[in-house]
Amino acid sequence: MASFTEHDNTAINTIRALAADVANSGHPGAPMGMAPVAHVLFSKFMNFNSKNPKWINRDRFVLSNGHACALQYILLHLAGYKVSMDDLKAFRQIDSITPGHPEVGVTEGIEVTTGPLGQGISNAVGLAIAQAHMGAVFNKDGFSLIDNYTYVFTGDGCLQEGVASEACSLAGHLKLGNLIAVYDDNRITIDGDTAVSFTEDVEQRFKSYGWEVLHVENGDDDVAAIADALAQAKKSQDKPTIINLKTTIGFGSLKQGGHDVHGAPLKKDDITQLKKKFGFNPEETFAVPKETYDIYNAAAEKGAKAEAEWQSLFKQYSEEYPKEASELTRRIENRLPEGWEKALPTYTTSDAAVGSRKLSETTISKLAEVLPELVGGSADLTGSNLTRWKGAEDFQHPSTGLGSYAGRYFRFGVREHGMTAICNGIAAYGGLIPFGATFLNFVSYAAGAVRLSALSHLRVLNVATHDSIGLGEDGPTHQPVETAAWLRAIPNLAFWRPADGNETSASYLVSILSQHTPSVLAFSRQNLPQLAGSSIEKAAKGGYVVEEVENPDVTLVSTGSEVYLCLGALEKLKAQGIKARLVSIPCFEVFNTQPRDYKLSVLPSGAPILSVEAYSTFGWGQYSHDHFGLQAWGASGPYDQVYKKFELTPEGISKRAEKVVAFYKKRGQPVFSPLISALDDISDE
Amino acid sequence: MASFTEHDNTAINTIRALAADVANSGHPGAPMGMAPVAHVLFSKFMNFNSKNPKWINRDRFVLSNGHACALQYILLHLAGYKVSMDDLKAFRQIDSITPGHPEVGVTEGIEVTTGPLGQGISNAVGLAIAQAHMGAVFNKDGFSLIDNYTYVFTGDGCLQEGVASEACSLAGHLKLGNLIAVYDDNRITIDGDTAVSFTEDVEQRFKSYGWEVLHVENGDDDVAAIADALAQAKKSQDKPTIINLKTTIGFGSLKQGGHDVHGAPLKKDDITQLKKKFGFNPEETFAVPKETYDIYNAAAEKGAKAEAEWQSLFKQYSEEYPKEASELTRRIENRLPEGWEKALPTYTTSDAAVGSRKLSETTISKLAEVLPELVGGSADLTGSNLTRWKGAEDFQHPSTGLGSYAGRYFRFGVREHGMTAICNGIAAYGGLIPFGATFLNFVSYAAGAVRLSALSHLRVLNVATHDSIGLGEDGPTHQPVETAAWLRAIPNLAFWRPADGNETSASYLVSILSQHTPSVLAFSRQNLPQLAGSSIEKAAKGGYVVEEVENPDVTLVSTGSEVYLCLGALEKLKAQGIKARLVSIPCFEVFNTQPRDYKLSVLPSGAPILSVEAYSTFGWGQYSHDHFGLQAWGASGPYDQVYKKFELTPEGISKRAEKVVAFYKKRGQPVFSPLISALDDISDE
Repeated sequence: MASFTEHDNTAINTIRALAADVANSGHPGAPMGMAPVAHVLFSKFMNFNSKNPKWINRDRFVLSNGHACALQYILLHLAGYKVSMDDLKAFRQIDSITPGHPEVGVTEGIEVTTGPLGQGISNAVGLAIAQAHMGAVFNKDGFSLIDNYTYVFTGDGCLQEGVASEACSLAGHLKLGNLIAVYDDNRITIDGDTAVSFTEDVEQRFKSYGWEVLHVENGDDDVAAIADALAQAKKSQDKPTIINLKTTIGFGSLKQGGHDVHGAPLKKDDITQLKKKFGFNPEETFAVPKETYDIYNAAAEKGAKAEAEWQSLFKQYSEEYPKEASELTRRIENRLPEGWEKALPTYTTSDAAVGSRKLSETTISKLAEVLPELVGGSADLTGSNLTRWKGAEDFQHPSTGLGSYAGRYFRFGVREHGMTAICNGIAAYGGLIPFGATFLNFVSYAAGAVRLSALSHLRVLNVATHDSIGLGEDGPTHQPVETAAWLRAIPNLAFWRPADGNETSASYLVSILSQHTPSVLAFSRQNLPQLAGSSIEKAAKGGYVVEEVENPDVTLVSTGSEVYLCLGALEKLKAQGIKARLVSIPCFEVFNTQPRDYKLSVLPSGAPILSVEAYSTFGWGQYSHDHFGLQAWGASGPYDQVYKKFELTPEGISKRAEKVVAFYKKRGQPVFSPLISALDDISDE
Repeated sequence: MASFTEHDNTAINTIRALAADVANSGHPGAPMGMAPVAHVLFSKFMNFNSKNPKWINRDRFVLSNGHACALQYILLHLAGYKVSMDDLKAFRQIDSITPGHPEVGVTEGIEVTTGPLGQGISNAVGLAIAQAHMGAVFNKDGFSLIDNYTYVFTGDGCLQEGVASEACSLAGHLKLGNLIAVYDDNRITIDGDTAVSFTEDVEQRFKSYGWEVLHVENGDDDVAAIADALAQAKKSQDKPTIINLKTTIGFGSLKQGGHDVHGAPLKKDDITQLKKKFGFNPEETFAVPKETYDIYNAAAEKGAKAEAEWQSLFKQYSEEYPKEASELTRRIENRLPEGWEKALPTYTTSDAAVGSRKLSETTISKLAEVLPELVGGSADLTGSNLTRWKGAEDFQHPSTGLGSYAGRYFRFGVREHGMTAICNGIAAYGGLIPFGATFLNFVSYAAGAVRLSALSHLRVLNVATHDSIGLGEDGPTHQPVETAAWLRAIPNLAFWRPADGNETSASYLVSILSQHTPSVLAFSRQNLPQLAGSSIEKAAKGGYVVEEVENPDVTLVSTGSEVYLCLGALEKLKAQGIKARLVSIPCFEVFNTQPRDYKLSVLPSGAPILSVEAYSTFGWGQYSHDHFGLQAWGASGPYDQVYKKFELTPEGISKRAEKVVAFYKKRGQPVFSPLISALDDISDE
């Protein structure tokens, strides 16, 4: 049992005073209110080695209320991570390692990027799932190698967000005993008192999810009660735990307990009285007493010792279970198995025309055999997304009889946003490559988490089937029109829309090789013939020439299910003496990274370029002079009739190509590739 | 109390058999399972007049599990709405009024567009809020004009969605007694049994939200229990009610109770045995016994009579309260008050430079005075969004002492997705113009509802402040980069990014005049000077010339907070003898609807066009030859330093403009406006 001295009290007040100094541009309230639980957790409970922040079995800490990051940076500083006092002074300044919200990759010791409310606690569910799975796969009798806890701090804001409801309901279903959440129940929101909008019974709600619910009445002073609650939470085997911790926001400030201390920094005189009250020198700023450093040095030493013991345990493990040990090492070091990519299927025109969702299923099934780190599932659309491979075991608590924690297939439920946020957590844990699946149209539900996959450089695969009006009868409510434009505009996100089997294999190849980039893989419901001009190598460049001609009159550029329609258009144009070439660009993000000369060989000057895609044409200006797509929404009906309605047929395409050719002939000026631009020339300098 | 005869049993089985015939391309299960509650509700409880589906005080019905729409179309047909047997036969066929999911505006009697899971039940919360507010404003002693109920059917899918959790938690807080939800607890999802992913205690969860929870054990046969539950739900004054109804999916089918009947149509022999079992002629399809029509004719007559009584009540009301009566009529007829637009503030360069969020606050405050139908609020960012006007009353249950149902300001809580879905419901009710507010970056959280505002042609205003890297210290997690591209790609959505006060007034003017188009209004945190070249009239065109010159060398085109930076660039260019003109395009959607000649006068041929915007440049190809924006994510720091880091300054802009001018001089070819395209020429024919 943790014991406390007056030095702990000093440490807590030091964190509060330091938070007031650090958060001089905003958000001092939560750090000051959560200082006690943060101190108890980091100095007495958390298992970490600040000298090796990547130790696989470290306890994970997530600050879901990321606006309180001054607190997290202070703790990382005290605990000996690479966060100096100068870094704390540079809080929220350009190019500092202490930005306004925690960003993984920017600051050592930050596990996931938080701040957008509801994401952190959902990431924590993913981190806990990853631990449970890795433990189930690699632990052996006497070798509990992977048994870390995941701790998450959350405010009421995160708990109001739907994404958190989705993730927490699933966490209860999955009985994730190693997940421990601390709810900072300070009853204050930006709009004032939680009474204005958030009066639900949070404890009852989490009980309904199947969580263990604990309660600490005095989170401001009662460190013993906090320690007891954390100790009890660690004992909970088959339930995640949430500790409802009553705190006073901005504790110590003249404005404590009010929403004035939520966002705005403390006034100078307020900081002065606060430091006096805590017995500190009000003239001193950014001060830490030696006793406080001592406590955290001890905690850091304890953690370093813990890792040392783990390393020796792993050494024995390596002797008794060499195969598992080398496999675990490979997974931790994020190396892919030798020759895994040979499992990717290749296709010729003699192969059957099938929906690319079916091609995706074949690819996933092959990859599941050679990539044990590939885990994932669907948001209750398994039979439509075709994401479950033969012989897959479900990831379920063994007591359900439906699977085990060693299972690699997830039943996410109808929870798209939670699914993607959970996948972010799984990817952040390490040793795993997660995927989540839904209809492309409903990837938008997960927008908040998708953008964070990209910002956080996490390799998350989003399998998105039924990727156009080709889904047919379900109609416009389910037919994406704007989705591709949105995803293509997100930095560091690869949106793939394969046209056939080889392009499908390429999309998985690049997605899995891209360790720091998430992908959305869009697949068709309707059947697509295999293209003569495609290959994994070509498609892996993001764009390539499907059919070339000498002195073309026009280039058609397309993606996915419209590419073979363009092939039909080429024939019609040929019949009229119009020479057209065809380009496929399954992935803008990847094609844009190709050398300029290659890109210009695919989309050269000389002839006009017409894009063809069953989406909004928004954004095609970068590749084409004219754009053929959807002007508005789709329609409900058999998919071929829907395509016909919008003239997305060989006839409709060739008709427009003729117009384009005639238009530019009439204009009589040289036609330049849209890839050539004045500002690119700048970058070429 | 409702009484039942064997004819009711026949009617229920008729609905089941008809559903099997109608849903011959999918989703027969839920309609067959929910036939009993649907029959009880529509024939005995619902207050509607199928001859006047727009009667303001009709009970609202929402099918949140919209994939079960065969059921809804059947009920509309039986109840005498304009849905013929031929329309039922055209289910999910091109251009039918019976698409794969219910779409408001397509089918008479459909209140909101549903199918994307979680939306319908959230819309229902909005419909109930609208009823409560309109009732509080217009009802008088003895004149309960607005007292309708809102009924919603939901499956487990909707309840798993985060958006539903957000909306239902708020509904409990608001104590919406007239909201009645029926949960079709059939324990089946697409992935199989709910046991694989959804094991939370739904009843306890809704109790935690403050809902009344009722329970019907046998929803397949026990019509009396269903009627009792509905009657009891209607009595609940201060709590929304959810009825947990145990049903058998696909009741009557050989596959009843399994997930095979969820999506796939029934086989012919299965339909045959079902009709035999129910005592119908298995050879007959799309058959309705006279007794069944009789029941629904009676219900329709009851409803017609109810409206007639309401009309006479309204006549008396008009005599006693002429002012209120004419106001209610105006609101129902969706007419804006005479001269309301005069309230819109105008600005000159002598007015102070302020953040456009502040300009938005001024505009909302003025409009709140002249537009009593304007209601709205923020997702717990009131102090940052600046959306609350002086003297506003909160929409709260009177018992809270925080406001009343007559209040027009909403405390949505940290629930962006729920907020927008609720606003969709408020707009669909009629007589109200709702707005919701958050940071632009978090409009993405509401993506699922935003696209449905647009598809449903609902006038919903989304106030989106902190619209760029200009939000500064909060950093990249809160700085939108891709958001504008996504919103601009959505059909029938107006994304506004005003550059100053006059453009801000214009954005509200057009948003409120656009009865069938939702808007996202993006406002800055940082101060913006008032432009000399702006006016409400010009900006209302969506795009206009801010500064014109003779024989320009280049046109700069920009939006929002970058427009005045471009003005600075113009001076620098002038100093170097480069003649540049400046265009502002606050709204692509609106500018694109202007006459071709006007558009070409704004973005003419002759000189190259350079776009400048602190976002991804994705999509600017439609207006500009070169594009200057963000290559990736923003940064955390004081906003002016962040702009400087990315060279979004007069210097950085002019430097690029010089390159563009030099590049096109060197090329030496005539420069054509990007607005001119071969396919536009098609449309000009």
